[in-house]
Amino acid sequence: MLTQLWDLKLPLIQAPMAGVQGSALTIAVSNAGGLGSLPCALLSREELVQELETIRNQTDKPFNVNFFCHTLPVEDPLKNQAWQSALSPYYKEYNVDFSTNKIPTKRRSFDEESIEILEHYKPAVVSFHFGLPSSELLVRVRKWGARIISSATTVAEAVYLEEKGVDAIIAQGLEAGGHRGHFLSDDLTQQAGTFALLPQIVQAVNCPIIAAGGIADKQGVLAALNLGASAVQVGTAYLLCPEVKANALHRAAIKSARSKHTAIANVFTGRPARSIVNKLIRELGPLRADMPPFPLASTALVPLRAAAEQRACDDFTPLWCGQNASGCKEISASELTHLLCEGIRVG
Amino acid sequence: MLTQLWDLKLPLIQAPMAGVQGSALTIAVSNAGGLGSLPCALLSREELVQELETIRNQTDKPFNVNFFCHTLPVEDPLKNQAWQSALSPYYKEYNVDFSTNKIPTKRRSFDEESIEILEHYKPAVVSFHFGLPSSELLVRVRKWGARIISSATTVAEAVYLEEKGVDAIIAQGLEAGGHRGHFLSDDLTQQAGTFALLPQIVQAVNCPIIAAGGIADKQGVLAALNLGASAVQVGTAYLLCPEVKANALHRAAIKSARSKHTAIANVFTGRPARSIVNKLIRELGPLRADMPPFPLASTALVPLRAAAEQRACDDFTPLWCGQNASGCKEISASELTHLLCEGIRVG
Repeated sequence: MLTQLWDLKLPLIQAPMAGVQGSALTIAVSNAGGLGSLPCALLSREELVQELETIRNQTDKPFNVNFFCHTLPVEDPLKNQAWQSALSPYYKEYNVDFSTNKIPTKRRSFDEESIEILEHYKPAVVSFHFGLPSSELLVRVRKWGARIISSATTVAEAVYLEEKGVDAIIAQGLEAGGHRGHFLSDDLTQQAGTFALLPQIVQAVNCPIIAAGGIADKQGVLAALNLGASAVQVGTAYLLCPEVKANALHRAAIKSARSKHTAIANVFTGRPARSIVNKLIRELGPLRADMPPFPLASTALVPLRAAAEQRACDDFTPLWCGQNASGCKEISASELTHLLCEGIRVG
Repeated sequence: MLTQLWDLKLPLIQAPMAGVQGSALTIAVSNAGGLGSLPCALLSREELVQELETIRNQTDKPFNVNFFCHTLPVEDPLKNQAWQSALSPYYKEYNVDFSTNKIPTKRRSFDEESIEILEHYKPAVVSFHFGLPSSELLVRVRKWGARIISSATTVAEAVYLEEKGVDAIIAQGLEAGGHRGHFLSDDLTQQAGTFALLPQIVQAVNCPIIAAGGIADKQGVLAALNLGASAVQVGTAYLLCPEVKANALHRAAIKSARSKHTAIANVFTGRPARSIVNKLIRELGPLRADMPPFPLASTALVPLRAAAEQRACDDFTPLWCGQNASGCKEISASELTHLLCEGIRVG
């Protein structure tokens, strides 16, 4: 199990969830014996430093910093135009102007600046989504002894990651909420549910496998370990914890019957990601052709989302959620972490 | 576990697989202590009687007869025309004529004639795909004491089936091969992977749940039981057994690396079904709008498929397969059944 390898009490990684959490969740889970994670993709330099300082002050346990390593997008005026056209009826309805867009939401990719900051804090684990950064950057990460992990949505991606020398691989089943982590192919038919993906990845590679997608309670944790996982990664179940910063609309959707109906949609950011179905998904998605490349599609949504949310309307809000929200509870992240691993014999 | 309830030695149902198996597989699995299944949808009256006679002669163990209960389709000339247009380049390539179609492939729906035949053999279990037949027909099935089961692809479908009084529900995860069993909605985004679907159905209803989709070996069986299933249904893993009638092209595809890439496609029959990706799926699928209603779409494929198969080409052959073909072995169905349940404590 990953516990012996990585100095963890529990074989559980809290999934990094950009946009809905900060260091509070990271700290709570690490202090509870799991591996807390900090999503860094949406953080500015200053915010990243501040979060790492906070973590250092509140826990001495291992934690995980997570970065996207998508290819930096090239603006495509035709695609931008098409996307804005598609959105313009809603702009009219909400009486909002495209030109009131704030500065486009940045998605930090893993780069020199990130490394320089991390070198001061030496996080025990550095995780990546959408493949891996360059070997030059990875070499510097290894210098402070960090473990490196990344997500695989297919057996081929797992084999690739092992060849690149990762310390463990996250097998991201179709059930998982948020962005699909694929990087070798964008053909979604190649991706599989956890029951199929996990054992086939376990058979195909030697390094430890972390199961992700659909795990909501201790039975799920146990089932994943039985299927050969060395640990599990859980995201959705934490969404109602007080340490999470999901907004009121997102929480309300998680608590409602709507949480049973999610879809993989590219209409929020340009990349496929699993969210509770809302108006934007129903009317323009779920998977739209010729979207602006990730993450540029979100720019045109910013004022529209803001206007709708002011009316307590989640029509344009990304309601990230996996296919199994049954584990969400309004309890502390620490309590949830213990519940998830209750009775799991760590050995 | 279903074993105590249903007089089975093993908590395993062999999935009925229309088009690739007959009574030989049913008999082998029932004699091995599982519940063998006979798919009846493609059988004429005479064939059904013959198969039931054969089963009666070769096993005294419980077995399951499976029927589709789709709505009988209405021919739509416009859709037929569009579908034939889409196929015509391939017809030209193979120099085949639409008019050489044999009589359209029938899909027996569950009806009076079926009941009259079954009443002579009184199968222990009668299972349905695509919902349930009318209550009048079900009342007659119950007269000989048969158990009634059906497939649910969502929690809502499971609740519906329980309200209709089924004896157990098959939770069909997205990983499963063959036709998706949905009947309340054809919105595929409502369907979930086994890891998410199974525990949520278990929580929502009281009757026993049979897990299906992605289960390929004993670890999978154990994981499904841990997630609350009373039994499992396994289909794909049996596809290389000698008792199965999958043709040589289908077997070859299962044995190759291509078996890792499946898709839910409606281009074979008009209804979404999971198959290994082949040319028809790549070029006209996977999910095509305005297909002729199930099962009429298969009519136009018959001569094309025959011509291609004569050239040892599987471009138009339905290569039914789930997302986890790793359990397929060229061993007897009896041996496979025992392997799948090895070490499972029946209690």
